Amino acid sequence: MAIGITDLPKMHPVKGFKLGTTKAGIKYKDRKDLVLMAIAEGSTVAATFTRNAFCAAPVLVSKENIQNSPTRYLLINTGSANAGTGAEGIKQANECCKIVADYAKTEAPEVLPFSTGVIGELLPIEKISRAIPSVFEQLSENGWHDAATGIMTTDTVPKGASEIIEVGGKNITITGISKGAGMIRPNMATMLAFIATDAVIKQELLQKCLSKAVKYSFNKVTVDGDTSTNDSCILAATGTSDCHEITAGSKEYILFEQAIHQICQKLAQAIIRDGEGATKFITINIESAKTETEAEIVAYTIAHSPLVKTAFFASDPNWGRLLAAIGRAEIDEININKISLFIGDTCLIRDGEPAAEYIEAAGQKEMNAEEITVRVDLGQGDQCSTVWTCDFSYDYVKINAEYRS
Amino acid sequence: MAIGITDLPKMHPVKGFKLGTTKAGIKYKDRKDLVLMAIAEGSTVAATFTRNAFCAAPVLVSKENIQNSPTRYLLINTGSANAGTGAEGIKQANECCKIVADYAKTEAPEVLPFSTGVIGELLPIEKISRAIPSVFEQLSENGWHDAATGIMTTDTVPKGASEIIEVGGKNITITGISKGAGMIRPNMATMLAFIATDAVIKQELLQKCLSKAVKYSFNKVTVDGDTSTNDSCILAATGTSDCHEITAGSKEYILFEQAIHQICQKLAQAIIRDGEGATKFITINIESAKTETEAEIVAYTIAHSPLVKTAFFASDPNWGRLLAAIGRAEIDEININKISLFIGDTCLIRDGEPAAEYIEAAGQKEMNAEEITVRVDLGQGDQCSTVWTCDFSYDYVKINAEYRS
Repeated sequence: MAIGITDLPKMHPVKGFKLGTTKAGIKYKDRKDLVLMAIAEGSTVAATFTRNAFCAAPVLVSKENIQNSPTRYLLINTGSANAGTGAEGIKQANECCKIVADYAKTEAPEVLPFSTGVIGELLPIEKISRAIPSVFEQLSENGWHDAATGIMTTDTVPKGASEIIEVGGKNITITGISKGAGMIRPNMATMLAFIATDAVIKQELLQKCLSKAVKYSFNKVTVDGDTSTNDSCILAATGTSDCHEITAGSKEYILFEQAIHQICQKLAQAIIRDGEGATKFITINIESAKTETEAEIVAYTIAHSPLVKTAFFASDPNWGRLLAAIGRAEIDEININKISLFIGDTCLIRDGEPAAEYIEAAGQKEMNAEEITVRVDLGQGDQCSTVWTCDFSYDYVKINAEYRS
Repeated sequence: MAIGITDLPKMHPVKGFKLGTTKAGIKYKDRKDLVLMAIAEGSTVAATFTRNAFCAAPVLVSKENIQNSPTRYLLINTGSANAGTGAEGIKQANECCKIVADYAKTEAPEVLPFSTGVIGELLPIEKISRAIPSVFEQLSENGWHDAATGIMTTDTVPKGASEIIEVGGKNITITGISKGAGMIRPNMATMLAFIATDAVIKQELLQKCLSKAVKYSFNKVTVDGDTSTNDSCILAATGTSDCHEITAGSKEYILFEQAIHQICQKLAQAIIRDGEGATKFITINIESAKTETEAEIVAYTIAHSPLVKTAFFASDPNWGRLLAAIGRAEIDEININKISLFIGDTCLIRDGEPAAEYIEAAGQKEMNAEEITVRVDLGQGDQCSTVWTCDFSYDYVKINAEYRS
């Protein structure tokens, strides 16, 4: 049901980054629900986490561990988010790290735990513990497809992106997966994403590169405005490529940064394309704003409007709802006489007035498409912002009203 | 289908305030869609209007007319909102005033126009013009019920409130009606509401009284977070009561202010009880906040969360979604260790930890109710805020996906 994506593209393995997936029976029998990723010694690892104040136990533990130790293992479970679980949840997240570390004969802080699923339930530690030998056994540089499936919750398709870029005559591989379909709203990483590259790059620069890419990808997508308690994005660089070290300000860095941005954007958009109940993939471009922040505020006011989202679901060119959303955006001032509004190539409003040439049939044609671009020219300045969202359908309600049953 | 309301209560007439309703055939044949209210000479009139930058033509004209002239007539049509209609729309709104004024042999600025319905369509001025003699003919102090029906759009029940209060041994009557079920979000008056009283009170004090009442009633309800382009609330005081003038700071003013507040709250809550697709009426109390504004931000973050709203629809005590919403509220800082969360009388979270005594059956019982109160203690200060909202159902999507077809 996802819009424009069906399965993973070709996933190029990254030397030094292995993935193992198994069925631990955490919530459902007979589905892949536990993933281990092993990162070669000497790799650098960057991360971004949710800004939700009620962040989940595994996020708290991951944040602490990544500060104190090199990261060698990522353990991800679906079925339970281990969020809203208080002190006991934190104990459990630490326990997960210890189980992996004991098996690998290393220290617990070298493991980062990730959980996704229902909030407010503790983890079945016994089941996870029993499944650990199996995920180690499965570890393989070709394990991307299974891992992408193993981290899914309400996702209907696995999500991945992979690219080989040429830098100075040498190849660098970047491959990543993501999950998420609901409780998606920009406020850091907004879902789970794991990206690996064989580039040689220092941790500080890798973090800078990831933070910027996340800002313009994962932090610009919204399904329902709800920021998850568990959002995390990890980028590991194993340094196994033949390409020499990527340093700040170099031409190589620009190429690498662009490629990471592209991968993040594909992974983030995949989440929207597979948004809960989504039938339309919508790009919202706000142009000629005074500031980037104001452009973003207008974009999100449109993207979060239930009336706009239900109109998209109905393929209804009800542009009044778009105008009303723009009009209530909380920015300094809106001069409606300067605003122009487009859906696709069709102009609906020009300088605040209904466009003379507009006919409903043109708007209808644009709204019938599965992928729709809304463009608003605020006529105030030269700043812009783009966000991606999906429509609001019966199935969104159905999925979220029945999620726990 | 409205929650806890079926029809109007006893509507006490207000001397000097007459209402006439007719079928003008504006959008649908054979339904009441045009209402005229006539306010006796010498009355005082207060008003609040939408803050949406794309405010509708009738709002612009009403705002101007009420500044420049005493108000004698209110003309309200459903079927078309006359919003997003540019200069032609403003011309039409002024034309409506002139038609009424000509018939009544008075001046156009003494008339305030109000429109509700689909955005982006012009008014059928001819049809309105033809129906004017009929609304004048219908004018009666007992016309409240027909008027409450005549201003409805997607409303399923007419909405009204009426009270007679005793002030210094004399009676004061306050009676009002409202409409609205979707595109409801606090940002001024958030729908149409017309209230009349026979109190003797100067315009300035009447406006102060209305503005405060609106702040804690119409501005605290939300169906979908969408602020309408047409929201208006009018309070007319005809001065026909035997009670002496109500002056600032008097004991009488306190009684009058309380009564206006009560009426506004009933009218505002009626809109939520009849919210598009609503099956639950939800009160959200945020307590112990640092500031009233922060309390309100947390309350609205909960009230606007599609995940929270679909959980209410499913009667699912999925408190993780409540926690996640609180956690992403954009306030200065949240200390999760101080937060307690209640649904009805049941404590789910105490000081940031799952309440030891909580059992799912208790949460389930609270969620099964048609009227639910969520209470959050932030443990930060002594300020509070209450907002009212409804759930998010299949029918919300259905109503809004099919509204224009």
